[in-house]
Amino acid sequence: MLSPKLTEVIKEIKPIDQLKKEEVSTYIDQLTKPQGSLGRLEELAITLAQITSSSFPVVSPPGVIVFAADHGIAAEGVSAFPQEVTAQMIYNFLQGGAAINVFARQMGAYFSIVDVGVAQDLEMEGSINKKVRYGTGNFLQEEAMTREEAFQALEAGIESAEQMVEQGAKCLVFGEMGIGNTTTSSAILAVLSEKEIDSIVGKGSGIIEEQLAKKRSIIAQALNNRQPNSADPIDILSKVGGLEIAAMAGAMMGSAHRQIPILLDGFICTVAALLAVKLCPEVKGYMIAGHQSEEPGHAVALDMLGLTPLLRLNLRLGEGSGAALAFPLLESACRMVSEMATFSSAGVSNKE
Amino acid sequence: MLSPKLTEVIKEIKPIDQLKKEEVSTYIDQLTKPQGSLGRLEELAITLAQITSSSFPVVSPPGVIVFAADHGIAAEGVSAFPQEVTAQMIYNFLQGGAAINVFARQMGAYFSIVDVGVAQDLEMEGSINKKVRYGTGNFLQEEAMTREEAFQALEAGIESAEQMVEQGAKCLVFGEMGIGNTTTSSAILAVLSEKEIDSIVGKGSGIIEEQLAKKRSIIAQALNNRQPNSADPIDILSKVGGLEIAAMAGAMMGSAHRQIPILLDGFICTVAALLAVKLCPEVKGYMIAGHQSEEPGHAVALDMLGLTPLLRLNLRLGEGSGAALAFPLLESACRMVSEMATFSSAGVSNKE
Repeated sequence: MLSPKLTEVIKEIKPIDQLKKEEVSTYIDQLTKPQGSLGRLEELAITLAQITSSSFPVVSPPGVIVFAADHGIAAEGVSAFPQEVTAQMIYNFLQGGAAINVFARQMGAYFSIVDVGVAQDLEMEGSINKKVRYGTGNFLQEEAMTREEAFQALEAGIESAEQMVEQGAKCLVFGEMGIGNTTTSSAILAVLSEKEIDSIVGKGSGIIEEQLAKKRSIIAQALNNRQPNSADPIDILSKVGGLEIAAMAGAMMGSAHRQIPILLDGFICTVAALLAVKLCPEVKGYMIAGHQSEEPGHAVALDMLGLTPLLRLNLRLGEGSGAALAFPLLESACRMVSEMATFSSAGVSNKE
Repeated sequence: MLSPKLTEVIKEIKPIDQLKKEEVSTYIDQLTKPQGSLGRLEELAITLAQITSSSFPVVSPPGVIVFAADHGIAAEGVSAFPQEVTAQMIYNFLQGGAAINVFARQMGAYFSIVDVGVAQDLEMEGSINKKVRYGTGNFLQEEAMTREEAFQALEAGIESAEQMVEQGAKCLVFGEMGIGNTTTSSAILAVLSEKEIDSIVGKGSGIIEEQLAKKRSIIAQALNNRQPNSADPIDILSKVGGLEIAAMAGAMMGSAHRQIPILLDGFICTVAALLAVKLCPEVKGYMIAGHQSEEPGHAVALDMLGLTPLLRLNLRLGEGSGAALAFPLLESACRMVSEMATFSSAGVSNKE
């Protein structure tokens, strides 16, 4: 059983526009370049046309929402950074000094930070307060959250995305901040993929080998203790999930609901994408993979979605940073369609 | 023997700044992100610092120069497009309707078109006339150009790059337009790489299989007829070269001379890069590979330069388009260094 709000949104999400595919593809073949010579940019333009149901799609201005929350599992020493860094980084975001701020400014993006579960009250103004609880429970010992809390976090995500679309964002990037959240994401992915834990758990923000072994063992124990039901995304979220991960999944549903392209970031974001698609398969059509990160589980998650990343730059930062770096390619794809001359308009001879 | 101008420029090109490497690398490790988590973007920032000899490198505004020329070898039917398309596409560039115009506008670039050897007089104003001759000779039958003409084209490139740097360009992209120029580039690469012709010759702008076999056979015959000396880039250019390819090689030397980063485009551009490096090995340090194209010789040429491309998007257009698509990543790398907070400035706890 889902919440009424979630049920309603899922019911209203439409499949992407299949008719645009041939129309835009035929038009692109008339632009002054050898057919197919802009490769993936042409595919991107077609996908964006299908998502937005527009022959001349527009992705600017984009919007970036960073969802922040803490993870009880951080108490097990699974991260290279102490838990207070979640709040400290939020203050950094609010002051514009983090990587995602820099890249968001570069792409002229709307930007917001949503607290869905930071373990402390924030001491700086500027973030949106949608706190569901003060961090998740340590899922080695107890459930991460209740089903009701999972719904609240998902709905906070839906609302956040829809609000940013109302502000004018034409493409959305979802970032996250939450010390310990690669551990949470790895646990979720282990359930969804049914793969060996060792093959999907990586060093996150940069733990050493010894800590990596511990992280893997904690995830294995936790999954054994919690026994999440792989067929039920809400059960997975409540047993081993994260509040910002639930919110990201919700935000993706909100984005699809408004026919706005979702530009996926790294590992954590893509795990949230798997949950969103599990809740509503139509959401997948709205997703574009920004990059493939260094975290080993990311390739697994992208593969499950059947998405090929635009960039491979050995990133492993999160925050939405890799998606933001890929954004100019979406902008280029849109401009290609709307600004290039055709063979006939430019008086250029086509292939002999 | 080189021309006096070329000799002078080569003598003045400095190696990139080795001291910046450690300095900038140490600084990047203080920025508010896990060490190394921005992957190749961090490497890019260091390379740009070394090239520009600046701890806070700047690449905007960039400049794009498209060099245009015709190829006598086009008479052998090696291209999917008729020769008049070279001039027609120049008119398209002048009117802003080609892919490179669109992407140059997106990145806020200076833009110029230099005619170094189009086979006809241009009927539209706006391009820079540095015509060396009306197209190269058909190198199946005769030498493509004289050594003197090769020097003229190289020098036209040097001047063009230096002029754009004087206008204010902080990073240069060199594009090309010339029907038949993948055939010319393949011939040059065959000489420089000593690889099997079949492994480096591709479909260029999109010829069919039958034409591809013919293209390969013509290149093999031409190399047999001309016998270029692989140790002498001027001999290669004069026997089987292209005027825009020589100009691009010259422009890269001009760019290095002014300590300006060179963002390489596709196959033809990278073959020009090999010639520039053969003339002056120090130029290599100034080069960044924008993307890897579909043309099989491009991977070979990048490998010879030891460069890893930023993008792999199955492009095969040329014009500088792939480099322009990669440019925002250089801009991001610069902004990362100049705009991100450090752990101490932001009051964020570093790794435990």
